[in-house]
Amino acid sequence: MFKRYFPILTWLPHYHRGLFSADALAGLIVTVMVIPQSLAYALLAGLPAVVGLYASILPQLLYTLMGTSRTLAVGPVAIIALMTGAALSSIAEPGSPAYIEAALVLSLLSGLILVGLGALRMGFFSNFLSHPVISGFLTASGILIAASQLGSLLGIDSSGFTLIERALTLTPNLATINPYTLAIGLGTLAFLIAMRRFGRALFGAIGLPEALGDLLTKAGPVFAVLLTTLACWYWQLAERGVAVVGAIPAGLPGLSFPLADAALWKALFIPALLISLVGFVESVSMGQMLAAKRRQRISPNQELVGLGAANLAAGVTSGMPVTGGLSRTVINFDAGAQTPAAGAFAALGIALVTLFFTGWLFYLPIATLAATITVSILTLVDIPMLRQTWRYSRSDFAAMALTIVLTLVEGVEAGIIGGVTLSLALFLYRTSRPHSALVGRVPDTEHFRNVERHDVEAPKNAALLRIDESLYFANARYLEDTVYNLVASRPEIEHVVLICSAVNLIDASALESLDAINARLKDSDVRLHLSEVKGPVMDRLKQSDFLDALTGRVFLSTYAAWREFY
Amino acid sequence: MFKRYFPILTWLPHYHRGLFSADALAGLIVTVMVIPQSLAYALLAGLPAVVGLYASILPQLLYTLMGTSRTLAVGPVAIIALMTGAALSSIAEPGSPAYIEAALVLSLLSGLILVGLGALRMGFFSNFLSHPVISGFLTASGILIAASQLGSLLGIDSSGFTLIERALTLTPNLATINPYTLAIGLGTLAFLIAMRRFGRALFGAIGLPEALGDLLTKAGPVFAVLLTTLACWYWQLAERGVAVVGAIPAGLPGLSFPLADAALWKALFIPALLISLVGFVESVSMGQMLAAKRRQRISPNQELVGLGAANLAAGVTSGMPVTGGLSRTVINFDAGAQTPAAGAFAALGIALVTLFFTGWLFYLPIATLAATITVSILTLVDIPMLRQTWRYSRSDFAAMALTIVLTLVEGVEAGIIGGVTLSLALFLYRTSRPHSALVGRVPDTEHFRNVERHDVEAPKNAALLRIDESLYFANARYLEDTVYNLVASRPEIEHVVLICSAVNLIDASALESLDAINARLKDSDVRLHLSEVKGPVMDRLKQSDFLDALTGRVFLSTYAAWREFY
Repeated sequence: MFKRYFPILTWLPHYHRGLFSADALAGLIVTVMVIPQSLAYALLAGLPAVVGLYASILPQLLYTLMGTSRTLAVGPVAIIALMTGAALSSIAEPGSPAYIEAALVLSLLSGLILVGLGALRMGFFSNFLSHPVISGFLTASGILIAASQLGSLLGIDSSGFTLIERALTLTPNLATINPYTLAIGLGTLAFLIAMRRFGRALFGAIGLPEALGDLLTKAGPVFAVLLTTLACWYWQLAERGVAVVGAIPAGLPGLSFPLADAALWKALFIPALLISLVGFVESVSMGQMLAAKRRQRISPNQELVGLGAANLAAGVTSGMPVTGGLSRTVINFDAGAQTPAAGAFAALGIALVTLFFTGWLFYLPIATLAATITVSILTLVDIPMLRQTWRYSRSDFAAMALTIVLTLVEGVEAGIIGGVTLSLALFLYRTSRPHSALVGRVPDTEHFRNVERHDVEAPKNAALLRIDESLYFANARYLEDTVYNLVASRPEIEHVVLICSAVNLIDASALESLDAINARLKDSDVRLHLSEVKGPVMDRLKQSDFLDALTGRVFLSTYAAWREFY
Repeated sequence: MFKRYFPILTWLPHYHRGLFSADALAGLIVTVMVIPQSLAYALLAGLPAVVGLYASILPQLLYTLMGTSRTLAVGPVAIIALMTGAALSSIAEPGSPAYIEAALVLSLLSGLILVGLGALRMGFFSNFLSHPVISGFLTASGILIAASQLGSLLGIDSSGFTLIERALTLTPNLATINPYTLAIGLGTLAFLIAMRRFGRALFGAIGLPEALGDLLTKAGPVFAVLLTTLACWYWQLAERGVAVVGAIPAGLPGLSFPLADAALWKALFIPALLISLVGFVESVSMGQMLAAKRRQRISPNQELVGLGAANLAAGVTSGMPVTGGLSRTVINFDAGAQTPAAGAFAALGIALVTLFFTGWLFYLPIATLAATITVSILTLVDIPMLRQTWRYSRSDFAAMALTIVLTLVEGVEAGIIGGVTLSLALFLYRTSRPHSALVGRVPDTEHFRNVERHDVEAPKNAALLRIDESLYFANARYLEDTVYNLVASRPEIEHVVLICSAVNLIDASALESLDAINARLKDSDVRLHLSEVKGPVMDRLKQSDFLDALTGRVFLSTYAAWREFY
């Protein structure tokens, strides 16, 4: 029980020096790498930069205690920051005390929701975010986030959480572009893109070992931060209008419990739910992928608890909603982290920075952070996926397209809710008009196939009708129509065999319809039979009066029915 | 095309004298019988009694032109009247001009929705009202309507559209019971119940022919209306506090087009949608039942158009929302109606009454109407159904119980919406955790059954896994877990065959999961095979890259796979 909720108890007793040195190194690397992105994501959410650091300390420590992934690194991430900003900006003025307070409420709510879902073992809930919806959402969010950084890159003001809002606030200010900011922003952007594309080859060419070259390539953002901070300090660019991070209060955040008013909690519930689900899906799918690489397992329900605890921790230490982050986790994994202790070391490292080195960040230009976000976020944009999905399934494509359009035009919440709703509606619509086929025997086998697709032996006076769907209220009447039309169009039929190999459920409405079909066929001297009824469905039918009223038999196999009538 | 929208063109050309006399007689009987209930249902909806007559004239004529049922009689019905009252009472004071105007808007909206659904051939939409939800809704509505009549039966004021509202407004007035009203109310109630129970036997005992006895039994309400009206007139009971129908303006309603404000239309949209769907379901299921009795067919999509036209007619002739009514239709059917012309004759009859005989209704006591409603509505209350549903399926029972409780406590809209939502959620939950079974061959057949339920031959190094559900986003991850757990628990397995006989759909998310399963099994040197993939599913898979990557084969039959590995 205790071990289930504190997976640290499963690995800490076996901890040894070899693991320690690997984890400590990874922790150090992660500390250096994630500071710029932590600051940047806090700004993306409309919060003071330091909040990003706060949210990388205690939340990560809690996850180390309670998470099941060995390598997941927890902290602020781009998508969640975007969703946080969108949710909060309808509540208060960005940057205001009420806004910062609302961010804490959002973290707490999200934490409570995640822990609640985990305790109730309702991790499956996130499965309703279908792959096309998530993929569409990530693409649209990537575009939104890139657009949101445009203002910072150009050194002009912009705000809003949809493309249209962005464009409307950005355009009038285009005349106020700051040349120094522009130079830093575009310069960093070019540098980062070049590092991504040519870094490895370059470091390889000058003879560095592959692992080191890899690490240096990944450290591109760190170099950019160092160089532009130095430049900004040396030339005092802040005085020429370049926005910098500025003074960050030194010291760790105090504990606070934002209990606020019930109306605020209520207003933030839906955003918190969506943030929780999206964060969970992003985190757990990455965790599963990396666990699979090392033949480890993660437990989705315990992940909910671990991420929930991390968000609760963020909520009481002046943080913001967090989850397992793609880039920070990949850095951690590649740096050789072996256990969650690596995450704890990184948290300690960031705590030290927050205590003693925030002064060093004073001259860090916002434009550098914007370039960092832009480059990393554009990997989310997956346009080929649109084509692939279109090719495979029109309804999946429709859900994906709606998610993208709504996210861009109406915002992140509308995008997710619209996409999920459409996915569910299309699934329900599909099951409400099930495919069915008249089948016959493939000669010399006991196998049955559609009479229209295959050359098969079908009985004359009996129709073997395979229903390709569970029978439930949405398709019960459709089943009636199908059978009545079949009998009406072929007067020679004396027996109808419903093949139930694909029927996984018969609910009360469908049972009613089967009763009606049975009675109506009886009036026309046609007998109704069933075949291949599955165990659980048969158990259920035996609870009703249907089998007594059934004019025909229940055949174990379709072959038995076929032998009877052919 | 024209015939499709005006089914009258299919039967009118073949009309003859025999049909005419049958229809005319039925029309006369219906006229006499439905006047009391039409008045009563208008009062139930909080509208002036005469509105019930108006809503029985032009709407019925339109249905005669455009409906496909031969015997359906259209007009105000109890459930729709209850829903109308509940919807309007949140808009305006019952009986006020704004309230009456809103009733017209509700009729028009309902008409537009029905015609719209019919034109788009979306009659299937109503299938989402599952049988348990409808049955629970009818039971709860029956109780609500009976409770709503209690005040009129006792001669005291009460109002509200939930049980609690009723009780709260009724209780303080209990001291003001009017003894004359009470006598009329309870007397009529007793008389009607006695007629229902003993009428036929009684008329049989005094030697009347069966058909006449039947008709006289059914005419119970008409006798009650005549007797109590006479009594009320003779003893001038209105002066002693007995509420009577009072002055009804003579003459037909004028045409009016209530265009009102957009806010009103918006506020009434959801109520109108629910009224449309419930009315359609009630009407069409009765229509189908009666059509089946005479081997006729009705077209659900054209029924939408017909009922929609009827509601549009009600909206422009000072009416109220209408649909095919259970009691009026049964009277029409039993009275021998042969074609929709019978309905037209009844409409003409009611028009004549409205023109010349409304004075005769002055002394009709409201308590008599209340007793009429109470007796007919209690047939909707179906308590045994609760027990039957519980026995067959807990989830159907849950939907039914929620519908009943919400309808009684929160009102009719909450009841339907809650019930439908729960039905859908339970269905989705169920499909998100599909049943699956390892199967083996039933000896000496080509038939495969669950290894745990049957004594079968299962291969050693291969797992034949039958998945009992379509594979879609909600269960894609569950499938992954199932397969991974299977392989982890049986290291001797070299082949996994997914039997897809129950898989009617593989969506993009599930395809992604299949890809992941295939790749992960490959890493563990296990091959993934498919068998019995259905035609439409296979067509889809061929559009993707999955089949190229698949490490194993696609077997036409499970038997072929079994032979390979056993």
